[in-house]
Amino acid sequence: MNFIEKYKTVRKEKNSILCIGLDPMVKEDPVEFCMDIIEQTSDYASAVKTNSQFILFSVDARKLRKLNRRIHDEGIISILDHKLSDITSSNIPALHSIRDAEFDALTFSPFAGNIRETVENAHKDNLGLFVLTLMSNPEAVWIQKETRFREKPLYLEIARRAGLSRADGVVVGATVDVNEIRGVREVTGDSTIFLCPGVGEQGGDFRKVIRTAGKNLLLNVGRAIINHRNPGKKAEEFWRLFNRFR
Amino acid sequence: MNFIEKYKTVRKEKNSILCIGLDPMVKEDPVEFCMDIIEQTSDYASAVKTNSQFILFSVDARKLRKLNRRIHDEGIISILDHKLSDITSSNIPALHSIRDAEFDALTFSPFAGNIRETVENAHKDNLGLFVLTLMSNPEAVWIQKETRFREKPLYLEIARRAGLSRADGVVVGATVDVNEIRGVREVTGDSTIFLCPGVGEQGGDFRKVIRTAGKNLLLNVGRAIINHRNPGKKAEEFWRLFNRFR
Repeated sequence: MNFIEKYKTVRKEKNSILCIGLDPMVKEDPVEFCMDIIEQTSDYASAVKTNSQFILFSVDARKLRKLNRRIHDEGIISILDHKLSDITSSNIPALHSIRDAEFDALTFSPFAGNIRETVENAHKDNLGLFVLTLMSNPEAVWIQKETRFREKPLYLEIARRAGLSRADGVVVGATVDVNEIRGVREVTGDSTIFLCPGVGEQGGDFRKVIRTAGKNLLLNVGRAIINHRNPGKKAEEFWRLFNRFR
Repeated sequence: MNFIEKYKTVRKEKNSILCIGLDPMVKEDPVEFCMDIIEQTSDYASAVKTNSQFILFSVDARKLRKLNRRIHDEGIISILDHKLSDITSSNIPALHSIRDAEFDALTFSPFAGNIRETVENAHKDNLGLFVLTLMSNPEAVWIQKETRFREKPLYLEIARRAGLSRADGVVVGATVDVNEIRGVREVTGDSTIFLCPGVGEQGGDFRKVIRTAGKNLLLNVGRAIINHRNPGKKAEEFWRLFNRFR
């Protein structure tokens, strides 16, 4: 089963487009923190997304396998928010390590240009690849929107190449404009999964995203769930809210 | 002492602009591999650059501190080739972890746009920051050179912002055109350190780089040294060669 099929199966089984952003702010045993969140929220999520920058040099492959097996036992997809952005010969060992840690997919930053090559290599390792396309942080506007490739904003060329390269998904901030979401969807085609951070604390309008991006969607909520005193209750709230509008 | 001063001191003491690229292809104990290379080459290098993607999930902070203390004992600078590329709130914990592992500097990918913010945060952690500007892999041409910000190629706008933000360095492939190197140097100003991979196996012309980029320079050689049966002899060769032309 390829990653998009895996995603569709899980979405159906869980009846959910909620992805939980695990950004463990704890230095001591971040995996325990993540396991605890998963235990409380697993009924409501299709995916979890763990950010590499929060576990840098503190978690090894053995612990990550333990975490990912637990995530898989709950029928959930595990995405590493790695923003891989090296040349191809250096991306390959990273992909092997991510596969060996038993993640299902990762995020990729296209600055080195090698979208097609990285999709191909990720798929060889049976990993899904999400291409950073249009981020929601305001500092990204000059490079992703105001910079142009043959008269078009850079993010649209990235989306086009992600679609052509059969990337499994694109990362598009939930806070961006509805016309931008529509533009990305038009060039990627319908099957590409939109992974949209920025819902919850960052204030992205998920209704707009659900209306515009189509069915293949993961809405990521991080801090609003993991920093809440009752993550399970909060995850259930987002799950209900998202399902009311899709 | 800030990073640029540290670099200048080491360059003078070692009489060297050689940086050794540590991309350990070994899964078992990559730190031991790196220590062995350092022991053999330390007389000839000003810096070593370790690539995060090669040590992913296999090396913890304790082992990296051991490695970095050894590197510092030899009077060498330690750069983490991390290509950090997240939003600022996620970059901050990564910077803390990189500082805690006792690196001197790191590389940064500007796709999220936050050059100024990341330089500021790196400096708070007493880390130097090298901004990826113009890479040497052919897949990067469409995004770094053919994409334009206000009529200029993207890499020149990145170089300009790196200079304005007081980034410690820029990463520019040794294989790029001499006019491109000159263009980057013109907008960064003279004090920015050029970190140039692509010498050795990748065939970059170091004479051209030395002639054009000025004094503040680190020429990175990876595989041609670390995969050689006698890394010390090979490092000495590059050291002599570089010093003959600078």
